[in-house]
Amino acid sequence: MPQNLLEGKVGIITGALDENSIAWKTAIKAKEQGAKFVLTNAPIAMRMGAINELAQECNTIVIPADATSLEDIEKLYDEAKEFLGGNFDFLLHSIGMSPNIRKGRSYGDLNYDWAMKSYDVSAISFHKMMQVAEKKDVMNEWASIVGLSYIAAQRIFPFYTDMADAKALLESIARGYGYRFGKAKKVRVNTISQSPTKTTAGTGIGGFDSFFNFAESLSPLGNASAESCADYIVTMFSDLTRMVTMQNLFHDGGYSFTGISEEMMDKLGDM
Amino acid sequence: MPQNLLEGKVGIITGALDENSIAWKTAIKAKEQGAKFVLTNAPIAMRMGAINELAQECNTIVIPADATSLEDIEKLYDEAKEFLGGNFDFLLHSIGMSPNIRKGRSYGDLNYDWAMKSYDVSAISFHKMMQVAEKKDVMNEWASIVGLSYIAAQRIFPFYTDMADAKALLESIARGYGYRFGKAKKVRVNTISQSPTKTTAGTGIGGFDSFFNFAESLSPLGNASAESCADYIVTMFSDLTRMVTMQNLFHDGGYSFTGISEEMMDKLGDM
Amino acid sequence: MPQNLLEGKVGIITGALDENSIAWKTAIKAKEQGAKFVLTNAPIAMRMGAINELAQECNTIVIPADATSLEDIEKLYDEAKEFLGGNFDFLLHSIGMSPNIRKGRSYGDLNYDWAMKSYDVSAISFHKMMQVAEKKDVMNEWASIVGLSYIAAQRIFPFYTDMADAKALLESIARGYGYRFGKAKKVRVNTISQSPTKTTAGTGIGGFDSFFNFAESLSPLGNASAESCADYIVTMFSDLTRMVTMQNLFHDGGYSFTGISEEMMDKLGDM
Amino acid sequence: MPQNLLEGKVGIITGALDENSIAWKTAIKAKEQGAKFVLTNAPIAMRMGAINELAQECNTIVIPADATSLEDIEKLYDEAKEFLGGNFDFLLHSIGMSPNIRKGRSYGDLNYDWAMKSYDVSAISFHKMMQVAEKKDVMNEWASIVGLSYIAAQRIFPFYTDMADAKALLESIARGYGYRFGKAKKVRVNTISQSPTKTTAGTGIGGFDSFFNFAESLSPLGNASAESCADYIVTMFSDLTRMVTMQNLFHDGGYSFTGISEEMMDKLGDM
Repeated sequence: MPQNLLEGKVGIITGALDENSIAWKTAIKAKEQGAKFVLTNAPIAMRMGAINELAQECNTIVIPADATSLEDIEKLYDEAKEFLGGNFDFLLHSIGMSPNIRKGRSYGDLNYDWAMKSYDVSAISFHKMMQVAEKKDVMNEWASIVGLSYIAAQRIFPFYTDMADAKALLESIARGYGYRFGKAKKVRVNTISQSPTKTTAGTGIGGFDSFFNFAESLSPLGNASAESCADYIVTMFSDLTRMVTMQNLFHDGGYSFTGISEEMMDKLGDM
Repeated sequence: MPQNLLEGKVGIITGALDENSIAWKTAIKAKEQGAKFVLTNAPIAMRMGAINELAQECNTIVIPADATSLEDIEKLYDEAKEFLGGNFDFLLHSIGMSPNIRKGRSYGDLNYDWAMKSYDVSAISFHKMMQVAEKKDVMNEWASIVGLSYIAAQRIFPFYTDMADAKALLESIARGYGYRFGKAKKVRVNTISQSPTKTTAGTGIGGFDSFFNFAESLSPLGNASAESCADYIVTMFSDLTRMVTMQNLFHDGGYSFTGISEEMMDKLGDM
Repeated sequence: MPQNLLEGKVGIITGALDENSIAWKTAIKAKEQGAKFVLTNAPIAMRMGAINELAQECNTIVIPADATSLEDIEKLYDEAKEFLGGNFDFLLHSIGMSPNIRKGRSYGDLNYDWAMKSYDVSAISFHKMMQVAEKKDVMNEWASIVGLSYIAAQRIFPFYTDMADAKALLESIARGYGYRFGKAKKVRVNTISQSPTKTTAGTGIGGFDSFFNFAESLSPLGNASAESCADYIVTMFSDLTRMVTMQNLFHDGGYSFTGISEEMMDKLGDM
Repeated sequence: MPQNLLEGKVGIITGALDENSIAWKTAIKAKEQGAKFVLTNAPIAMRMGAINELAQECNTIVIPADATSLEDIEKLYDEAKEFLGGNFDFLLHSIGMSPNIRKGRSYGDLNYDWAMKSYDVSAISFHKMMQVAEKKDVMNEWASIVGLSYIAAQRIFPFYTDMADAKALLESIARGYGYRFGKAKKVRVNTISQSPTKTTAGTGIGGFDSFFNFAESLSPLGNASAESCADYIVTMFSDLTRMVTMQNLFHDGGYSFTGISEEMMDKLGDM
């Protein structure tokens, strides 16, 4: 049933790597709900075949941009504005990467240049996209900006190492810029803290399967899928959530507030 | 623009006292979005003229019920089921009252019978409505239950006295029953922590105006209105938020994560 | 090594049931640190032999009092003041009981009279003890009041049923009265959220062992013992923590901020 | 009254700039409680006269070290070990600096190289000190590591700009390394979130006075002083708090859980 929740809205979606990505699903859903948008990804992270296919499906274009580069962000906004015919109503930040995780460095053996890279790509890029957006005045009033986070920002999951710190930084930036952008132009900024998700990025983290199952077994509704996350993002882009800002919103089937489940107690009972 | 977010959904809305009520606005919005529902309120709290008018506008009926009475809740569900033709997809709990506040008793001079009444009306009634619903098996899978809360559950506002404790209890019940109902039948339960709102109930609290202005001046987007809260409730009733459960969701223009605003610093500067 | 952290301080310790109790250990430690105090417990919960033995060891008396009775609390304060020779510097609330848990009622089958009893005994008694203390003006400036809580106030542990709600209420009362008592007389109020502890009360809860082991396996330092909790309470009673108030302090070996441990991942790996 | 809470304990105290510093007060108090320690500060931040005077008062030495330099940290540990005659029982991280604040750049006009510097000095240095400590195995079992934070990590104070993000990062690092160090060697790691404090660093922030007064007026016990913070740190270094780890502990007179005070309502009443 076509609901047209995003009728007339235009925006930018980052981070659509392949069809497992939350950003990819969001593009599909946003299109269904009447939105127009451009896609963007870091040149280094793009699988051109895949994202071009998505662009075609969404009648849009791909603008390569490294979100850690102020110049690239400026160019992205200029080209997006031209293609879309005006300022933006929404922006999805779905970008994260840790060289320390990729190269198997534990939290007690961090390479600090790489940690800086983790923060820059996964968190500071969010600030950069907002600072440039404000300076260039490319957001419409009541625009909605969403970043994707993970509960490791609050609680420790040993395998997540410096990405946990990057997510804490990201959520802090959402609050800080949310305050500023709210006062300046009624723009709202939130993060969604999503269940472990079987994306290409997610499954690359060591121990992912075992943790995915742990979370599945704790969450009363099970883990939230990438697709349901896209649905939730659509509500956050819509006008129905205008007064929600500076929040970190758990989208996780209840995991965040579950201490233990009966299933888990049964599993552990024999130990 | 008709979005039909609640097409085919049926439910129960409590607490519509008059046209300033969040529940009243929710009824209007839910109707616009395609929902069918019954209205209910405590016999003692009903202004029959007003709520009947709302019922007429929404093509529905009013079923008086005291939400602290298990018998009344059972009767409510039976009659609602008959009128609506089936089980429920949503339930709004918008009920609260403190005899201690009404009678001007401070937090250091609580009448404990009245405090029990505050908890029963404002919080335990939420548990009762869910326990009866589960026992009678009247909720559909993926149904959404929402209660209304206030940030006094986390931080102290002296004038709010035992209602703060009642809200803390309410939020705890949302988590506890959210776990249970999620496991049992995929039903999700959340509370929305709303800005101070100029409802008839809200403005009855001493010092309301001064606090309303304080919150207005802190929140980057200003205080959220009853109408925008109704919009938000609609998203929580929709299928787009299926994996959100056991959460307390701040709907407050950013108040909850603002320490101080520049406006407030200016105001206080001369002191 | 005698540190005399509580030299010259006098107070009241509730809830010392037997030598496994946190309150019992607190009495021993407080005595070692130079404090004078009376012991109290509900007549119904007292094992007279045991608590009298503790009283002897601590050169003090036992004053039976039901903490849900305002009259009993008044009498307790009068007699304690007489025995101790003045007003109080500290108060430990270590009282909790749920008839629903005792009688095996699940969270979806609560007896509401019993739930009210759970709240009254486990949470409202905390308010009563403070309200009577303020009215009778029996606390010294900078006195420290501590209640014992559990993380079920924040996250769901299915077997804890209505005690979770009682603990949420207790923590809210600590904030509310902490604000009031701080303004009125520099009295501070906090709760300590303790690991699952092998007390007589704790082990009476169904599934306790399995949850105890789960928490032990998650907490980087393991579960905190009753004895270490008593040490922590001593610091909260001392003058070194004067500016800490309205807080819920986790004393749990790191459990509260651990999402998963490597040990748990290993355990679950084969499932 | 000499309590000897830190009898036999040795450690390292960073950040004692002058007699207003929390670190300075901590040194004095730790000495009184029987501890031995070395002092350290960044060469660039040292006021040699002042800190040497403190060293003399505490019968110790000053080892200059830049906490962002792994080499300096290694040298610090080597020299401290030699002077103190063994491994460490406590470590105070009291280091923070934002070039963006110093140079008056607002949150919407951050210089990102400077932001990186803010994070490195104020937060990542905490990780570096712990990673080097673990690798060199210089901490004793049950050692206690404390960092100093501020509530801007949770809520927005516009003038605090990128230091808010640095503090969020610091607190996340405390959790992450607290998990790791707890498992590895029973070392506990916490942050203390302190009231706005009239230190030389604090008062350098624009709008400090107006915010200091705002906090003073909200906190039921008033703002916590540097001296009372030092007392609290002493308890965290002692053996009485062994099972507290991965926590962010508010030391703020109740500010963190106060929404509004009667005083503030009176002040605002006329507006």
